[in-house]
Amino acid sequence: MTKKTNKKINKLWGTAFEQKSTEAVIKFTAGRDVQAVPPADYKLLAYDLWGNKSHCVMLYKQGIITKKDAQVILKGLLEIETLALKGKFVLGSAKEDVHTNIESWLIEKYGIEQAGKLHTARSRNDQCNLDTRLYLKDQVLGFIEQAAGLAKVLIVQAGKYKTTIVPGFTHHQHAMVTTFSHILLAFAAMIVRDAQRFTTWFKLHNFNPLGNAVAYGTSFVIDQQLTSQLLGFDAPDVSSLDEITNRWEAESDLAFSITILMNHLSLMAQTLIIFSTPEFAMIQLADQFSTGSSIMPQKKNPDPLEVIKGKTAFAAGILQGLLGLGKANFIGFNRDSQWTKYLIMDLVDECLPAPKVMAGVIETMTVNKKKMAFWCQVGFVGATSLLEQLVAKYKIPFRQAKIVMEKAIKHSKGKNKVSYSALKQAFKSENLKLNINPKQVQAWQDPIQIIKLAKSFGGPSSQSLKKSSTILLKQIEGLGGWLEKKLNQKQKALQLLNQQIKKIMEEI
Amino acid sequence: MTKKTNKKINKLWGTAFEQKSTEAVIKFTAGRDVQAVPPADYKLLAYDLWGNKSHCVMLYKQGIITKKDAQVILKGLLEIETLALKGKFVLGSAKEDVHTNIESWLIEKYGIEQAGKLHTARSRNDQCNLDTRLYLKDQVLGFIEQAAGLAKVLIVQAGKYKTTIVPGFTHHQHAMVTTFSHILLAFAAMIVRDAQRFTTWFKLHNFNPLGNAVAYGTSFVIDQQLTSQLLGFDAPDVSSLDEITNRWEAESDLAFSITILMNHLSLMAQTLIIFSTPEFAMIQLADQFSTGSSIMPQKKNPDPLEVIKGKTAFAAGILQGLLGLGKANFIGFNRDSQWTKYLIMDLVDECLPAPKVMAGVIETMTVNKKKMAFWCQVGFVGATSLLEQLVAKYKIPFRQAKIVMEKAIKHSKGKNKVSYSALKQAFKSENLKLNINPKQVQAWQDPIQIIKLAKSFGGPSSQSLKKSSTILLKQIEGLGGWLEKKLNQKQKALQLLNQQIKKIMEEI
Amino acid sequence: MTKKTNKKINKLWGTAFEQKSTEAVIKFTAGRDVQAVPPADYKLLAYDLWGNKSHCVMLYKQGIITKKDAQVILKGLLEIETLALKGKFVLGSAKEDVHTNIESWLIEKYGIEQAGKLHTARSRNDQCNLDTRLYLKDQVLGFIEQAAGLAKVLIVQAGKYKTTIVPGFTHHQHAMVTTFSHILLAFAAMIVRDAQRFTTWFKLHNFNPLGNAVAYGTSFVIDQQLTSQLLGFDAPDVSSLDEITNRWEAESDLAFSITILMNHLSLMAQTLIIFSTPEFAMIQLADQFSTGSSIMPQKKNPDPLEVIKGKTAFAAGILQGLLGLGKANFIGFNRDSQWTKYLIMDLVDECLPAPKVMAGVIETMTVNKKKMAFWCQVGFVGATSLLEQLVAKYKIPFRQAKIVMEKAIKHSKGKNKVSYSALKQAFKSENLKLNINPKQVQAWQDPIQIIKLAKSFGGPSSQSLKKSSTILLKQIEGLGGWLEKKLNQKQKALQLLNQQIKKIMEEI
Amino acid sequence: MTKKTNKKINKLWGTAFEQKSTEAVIKFTAGRDVQAVPPADYKLLAYDLWGNKSHCVMLYKQGIITKKDAQVILKGLLEIETLALKGKFVLGSAKEDVHTNIESWLIEKYGIEQAGKLHTARSRNDQCNLDTRLYLKDQVLGFIEQAAGLAKVLIVQAGKYKTTIVPGFTHHQHAMVTTFSHILLAFAAMIVRDAQRFTTWFKLHNFNPLGNAVAYGTSFVIDQQLTSQLLGFDAPDVSSLDEITNRWEAESDLAFSITILMNHLSLMAQTLIIFSTPEFAMIQLADQFSTGSSIMPQKKNPDPLEVIKGKTAFAAGILQGLLGLGKANFIGFNRDSQWTKYLIMDLVDECLPAPKVMAGVIETMTVNKKKMAFWCQVGFVGATSLLEQLVAKYKIPFRQAKIVMEKAIKHSKGKNKVSYSALKQAFKSENLKLNINPKQVQAWQDPIQIIKLAKSFGGPSSQSLKKSSTILLKQIEGLGGWLEKKLNQKQKALQLLNQQIKKIMEEI
Repeated sequence: MTKKTNKKINKLWGTAFEQKSTEAVIKFTAGRDVQAVPPADYKLLAYDLWGNKSHCVMLYKQGIITKKDAQVILKGLLEIETLALKGKFVLGSAKEDVHTNIESWLIEKYGIEQAGKLHTARSRNDQCNLDTRLYLKDQVLGFIEQAAGLAKVLIVQAGKYKTTIVPGFTHHQHAMVTTFSHILLAFAAMIVRDAQRFTTWFKLHNFNPLGNAVAYGTSFVIDQQLTSQLLGFDAPDVSSLDEITNRWEAESDLAFSITILMNHLSLMAQTLIIFSTPEFAMIQLADQFSTGSSIMPQKKNPDPLEVIKGKTAFAAGILQGLLGLGKANFIGFNRDSQWTKYLIMDLVDECLPAPKVMAGVIETMTVNKKKMAFWCQVGFVGATSLLEQLVAKYKIPFRQAKIVMEKAIKHSKGKNKVSYSALKQAFKSENLKLNINPKQVQAWQDPIQIIKLAKSFGGPSSQSLKKSSTILLKQIEGLGGWLEKKLNQKQKALQLLNQQIKKIMEEI
Repeated sequence: MTKKTNKKINKLWGTAFEQKSTEAVIKFTAGRDVQAVPPADYKLLAYDLWGNKSHCVMLYKQGIITKKDAQVILKGLLEIETLALKGKFVLGSAKEDVHTNIESWLIEKYGIEQAGKLHTARSRNDQCNLDTRLYLKDQVLGFIEQAAGLAKVLIVQAGKYKTTIVPGFTHHQHAMVTTFSHILLAFAAMIVRDAQRFTTWFKLHNFNPLGNAVAYGTSFVIDQQLTSQLLGFDAPDVSSLDEITNRWEAESDLAFSITILMNHLSLMAQTLIIFSTPEFAMIQLADQFSTGSSIMPQKKNPDPLEVIKGKTAFAAGILQGLLGLGKANFIGFNRDSQWTKYLIMDLVDECLPAPKVMAGVIETMTVNKKKMAFWCQVGFVGATSLLEQLVAKYKIPFRQAKIVMEKAIKHSKGKNKVSYSALKQAFKSENLKLNINPKQVQAWQDPIQIIKLAKSFGGPSSQSLKKSSTILLKQIEGLGGWLEKKLNQKQKALQLLNQQIKKIMEEI
Repeated sequence: MTKKTNKKINKLWGTAFEQKSTEAVIKFTAGRDVQAVPPADYKLLAYDLWGNKSHCVMLYKQGIITKKDAQVILKGLLEIETLALKGKFVLGSAKEDVHTNIESWLIEKYGIEQAGKLHTARSRNDQCNLDTRLYLKDQVLGFIEQAAGLAKVLIVQAGKYKTTIVPGFTHHQHAMVTTFSHILLAFAAMIVRDAQRFTTWFKLHNFNPLGNAVAYGTSFVIDQQLTSQLLGFDAPDVSSLDEITNRWEAESDLAFSITILMNHLSLMAQTLIIFSTPEFAMIQLADQFSTGSSIMPQKKNPDPLEVIKGKTAFAAGILQGLLGLGKANFIGFNRDSQWTKYLIMDLVDECLPAPKVMAGVIETMTVNKKKMAFWCQVGFVGATSLLEQLVAKYKIPFRQAKIVMEKAIKHSKGKNKVSYSALKQAFKSENLKLNINPKQVQAWQDPIQIIKLAKSFGGPSSQSLKKSSTILLKQIEGLGGWLEKKLNQKQKALQLLNQQIKKIMEEI
Repeated sequence: MTKKTNKKINKLWGTAFEQKSTEAVIKFTAGRDVQAVPPADYKLLAYDLWGNKSHCVMLYKQGIITKKDAQVILKGLLEIETLALKGKFVLGSAKEDVHTNIESWLIEKYGIEQAGKLHTARSRNDQCNLDTRLYLKDQVLGFIEQAAGLAKVLIVQAGKYKTTIVPGFTHHQHAMVTTFSHILLAFAAMIVRDAQRFTTWFKLHNFNPLGNAVAYGTSFVIDQQLTSQLLGFDAPDVSSLDEITNRWEAESDLAFSITILMNHLSLMAQTLIIFSTPEFAMIQLADQFSTGSSIMPQKKNPDPLEVIKGKTAFAAGILQGLLGLGKANFIGFNRDSQWTKYLIMDLVDECLPAPKVMAGVIETMTVNKKKMAFWCQVGFVGATSLLEQLVAKYKIPFRQAKIVMEKAIKHSKGKNKVSYSALKQAFKSENLKLNINPKQVQAWQDPIQIIKLAKSFGGPSSQSLKKSSTILLKQIEGLGGWLEKKLNQKQKALQLLNQQIKKIMEEI
């Protein structure tokens, strides 16, 4: 009889790993193999309720519905909210969308006489656009927060490697020498810029679509200023026809900012992937940010970084889809635009966690300073510095000095630095007299000396790095202030709304 | 006390509609508002089982595992199959993917001693690529079938409107006159070409990836010819490293063919949407292919056609995402490519039903022949025909005759046809003598006469339409034959596999 | 013998046209059939000279080169400038680029001893990035100016059609009624937003790349604050490695803003194209914005609008190309990024004139007010208004009133308005009592009355339109102020530079 | 006085290079900095003449024009051809396009009486589409030829490295061991598939558009079979309205095939770029496929490979532009589609030389076999092989053996191979008895032994490589035969046309 060992096996690799991945990383890299994507409108439930409550308060204050009507409707909406918070308000698939689910729940429970008035003076288009706008706003804030968080981590990490020399690459080849801090700060600068880019969204789109109706206004005397306040918008839409026709634009603005952010994350990912090959061996990813193989027992793969790259391509595709949806439309609402919802939601879901994953990778990776220094000895990384010294100290015109150096390098074939004799020979062939001693030739090609001299603003010397860090931190602080202001606007709106509701409900 | 009428309301419009939409149309247009997207790997379950069984049979026949091993494994796989057919094999989200779910189910139930041998001589990459390839194959066949079906509908419908005149547009303006049949046959020609394009996929990708292992082969003596036969492939992959590195290409080939198909469907959609405006009023969509408004009681909107347009933009975005995933990779498998799975599956899910929806729209729409004929009286649609007659009958050089006609039209301002007097005036100003009587001038601008004369191949005359129909039907027949051959290959593979399994299982 | 009439013919159509296209429109629509695209670097010549002069002044002021050196170099640069202004500085194709052309011209004419010093303390990457940045800045300003100009035209035109009723479309179907002014103002709102979007570019990218060298700084003591002032930048780049690695990002930011603008222009184009079909006949394009056919003598085609649509697809493709160029790069400069130059330049060349072309189309088109009013009588455009009145005046819950109206419309089949009797029948079937007189039923469906009532903010009533216009004009004014500030920054920079040069050159 | 050395300098680098780049490589990498893009229609001149001649012959044979007419027209066309061959037929920019240039040249020289008849029974759309189709055909053939050429080079080179071991990567990490030949053959397999993909174009689009007229046929009795023969097409278009409406599709089909090809070339480029870093140092590019720096004297940059990557992103963008141009159009010709011409021509110009450049890179690069072998000693590349031996020789279930190996690797930390003692310890902890001697443990991890065992089809062993090469060479041969057939069709068409012309001209 055969022995049976009924092992419980969830993953077919991992025995060799010392630290398990965090839940967030697993989720980010897992994809949708064994995970469903829930119905889209669950994401809008809270926003739809917010919109319904605000609309109802306004209808009452304008005398379009009675206090009694408002009380019944608000009661119902608060009940739905309670259910929703417990995850118990189920969106029935027989009812088209979240709007229909909520309104028909109200009518079914409280009767068409009152609940049937909630939709007065608005269209479903108002609701779609309102919910989307509120959803997008929160995502924009979320991305800014995530990006700022990553930027801070990069600056903190950069602080640790101010004197860690590493080859400065161009064309994947050794160009000059730099510090690892310089690289990390360059990453930080990109990400800060990305965070700033997201803020544009608010300038362009923080306007209230509720009141646009089908796109052509309404004969009811509504108060769009009030609903703007209750919903945290700067003002109502200046044209009822504009945004409804462009239900792809606020989405595209967000998607574009995400795509640029992802492009930068993919740059960081690619750089770290290459730095962590056995050949470069400059860094090693932590176990919790690696995955194994189903067959090769030794593998530790940089999956989270690869997933970031994959999602970057995905982001560009989504943006393309959104822009295509917005091309050459006829004026007024068209149904095509519904698909913008799924595109942007999928994009947000896939990418919002990316900055934090990257921050985790960077905070936990091991930096091999020796290896970085080792590679600085290879490939004439000091040549440009030596060239600059020839120009600076010997007043040889740059263009001529470069010709000399190219020859010197040719004469130094097989080596990694320009030798004294090679330089001498090069000087001679250009009819110049070499007045340098061999020690200087060596010194000017020494990576540590080079870095000390690279004091230009934005460069890799300690002084320059300090200046850059200070500026970037100030920019992050500015973003923090901006974020706070926006969150306050939201907070105030919700407080005002709750006050209004309380007043209406008081006398039941 | 308030009266309460607890109406059950699922959709907030529709009372005015005489025929309800079919389930398929509703699903196609509904989107994901209140519908979840199930885990991707359910789509691969059947393919993974097929692959596992074939691999197991091969391992046994090559002596890599014992008959006893094979029997235990096959027994387990057949059990899973039975469960899966009943929808009872649940993919646990704690187990990474369908491959892990199946293998660990086997190990948990039948022990590592036998079930632990199933993964011998293969890698998870084999399985991913195999399952995907089998899935893609079936989708390709599905799209060809759908497209051919639509093309047939178009040809049948075209048969009904051979003498239905309609303006022939260029630049959205009346250019000449044509028949509605001519337009429908043009649509058919596009769709037939689309169906043919899909067949390329088989030529390029109907090869067996099982046996590639991680990408670098295996030391086990496996029989890739056998598994190719058991899985319905033409042959094993010629390089174990090629396709694993390009896990975006077979997906892109399919996505491209879909995108072109969708572009054509979006052209049809846009044309029909414009034809169905109140201004054109040339066609009217059937109720079951229209949707209403939540606020405007009179609306019948061409939503299914708009959704087709929306999904067309989506398709182009997905293709872009896939191509981006395939750019500038490093040799060997990279995890980024996992996302190709969700991209292509989402695309297939959204677009596969599109041809049938379009067929439905076209079969059920009402064609307003009178209106079509009415518009043929507007905008000088007979001018080119008159011009051709001047050239043909009076031997006036074309280029001169055109100048004459441009002047005649200028003199006919405010009318819809060139008048005899205007033509006369134009002839005079070009120093030509007009030898035509007023009746001829009218006759040569008569839409029905024009169509009769348009006998050039591919044109709108009845004779030409008949020739074109015949050719297109023959092409569809050819596609049918091709399809049958491919389905046979699959059928035979499954039969062979079942025979092999039966043989192995006989002696338990 | 044959008669020979050697007519000079440039275009094979046009005799029927009363007004010739303007040169700008012809150029915009002509494409590249018989027009070459000049070498890209001619666009950078002026910027490269500006950069060279600024760098030279700085080198001198920092003591890196002597006054004599600076004088020789500046003399040469001023000579080149004079030649360039006359179109006489030819970029030799044997010399890689504008940078090489200028430097080698200087060396060839003034010798390596002085001219060979110009490249001290900088890299070609500095120059590329600097020139590009200066070029992009001017394009951003240009687009803002163009967009603001178009927005103004739209507002002025909107002022003319405040009472011109027109069907309000959704789904290409008549939904409600609106004014043509409302449509034009919606266009204006989009374009104002587009103009605002472009300003983001300055916030993110108005920084000085000169001084980044290869990306890793320099040992020369350079003054990047000074060059920032001389070149009109806010400050030097905070990281020398950031922007050089991202030579696709400032381009993408511009390309994205252009793509959104083009999407809006394509929406306007498509709407106007449909409005100008013989079927709609609501507008007619002026002759100078139409083109003819080589064969059909009567054709007046909306080519400029179609070309706008075509270039919109082109724009999205270019953006995609740029984003693809920025995906998953390795840190440091890579040559791939050179192609970003051609992509963005082609895009600017194709699209910068588009707003002005659109403005021309709109200023010169004929609006057929009668036809617009005629179509308002078709397709129940007053149904929603009637519904709102039922709700407002008779306190019927909206949801119930809508059911009533849907039935009333069903009973009014074949008509264009809800009849009194149909409404009565509908009321009855819902057990409601109709208390309205037939006149009211008519009046509430009267387009002119409807518009008067549509006073919601952003809507089509005269009052609403006035409010919206005022806000939009204020936003345009704000953009004007912003533009002036940016142009001042540039002006001041050039003045400062010229002063510095004058000082240096004084003592020759 | 200052000394002046007026050196002639064309490039600001290159002194250190031993071999100059070839002209083709320079052109490929140069871009458009100092190169103009000529007017597009020069590319169509020869095709337009071919079309004109064929049309004229047909008109004569159908009795639509007289022999005299045909003689005059053909004489003129032959004169233009002579001028064109000498580069002396200038496309005047005042005349819209190549069609207008040719026709008006004929009319100006030979009079409207005869030359004015050439445009009888056709439209400019016929000409555009015909010229484009002929142009595209030749490009398709060109790409197939180029791709097949590259594939052959790859196979030849692969023949040289059948025993050159190199790490087999997955996730940029060492996975197993393979041969450099295996990598090169994988490249070859991709490129052969790419060449095959291009052939689809002919199946779908090798049809004659001449005779479609504006899209709605003609009343002239034309012979489209004859022109099909004279122009090398399989048959006339089955619908006159189809292809004119889809003037983006044949372009997209070509663009897609190019994009996939470029994706593969970019994969090769990226792999070679990484292999040629100082850290990997596995290959070194030849001087003639490298470029230098304007400032760093030592640099040899893989510019041609980077340019291939850049153009890959460009290709995807162009494809996207073309697909966008084809979305949701209205039936009939629309002017937007003109831009498809420039998109596809730019794409062809940028990418057609890419395969040859890649072939050059590969033929001339130096392969560092020692370094490749060295890296095979790093990172447990033999672990999977050892695992397979444990399974094969000791009948340990694969899944269990993998757990053992993961532990053994953990115990071998800091080493590059699994040690005997580590393996023993791992066996023990799994309650298994290790029956292997230390030598075997070493041998089964030896790269050279591993390769010898990897005999699975498509794998890296010499036998497998030979089989794969044979198949690929046969496929290339098949493509060669296909190419020849297509070139014959063209040759025959031209011969037939010349015979016809000769006959007509004989009696002048």
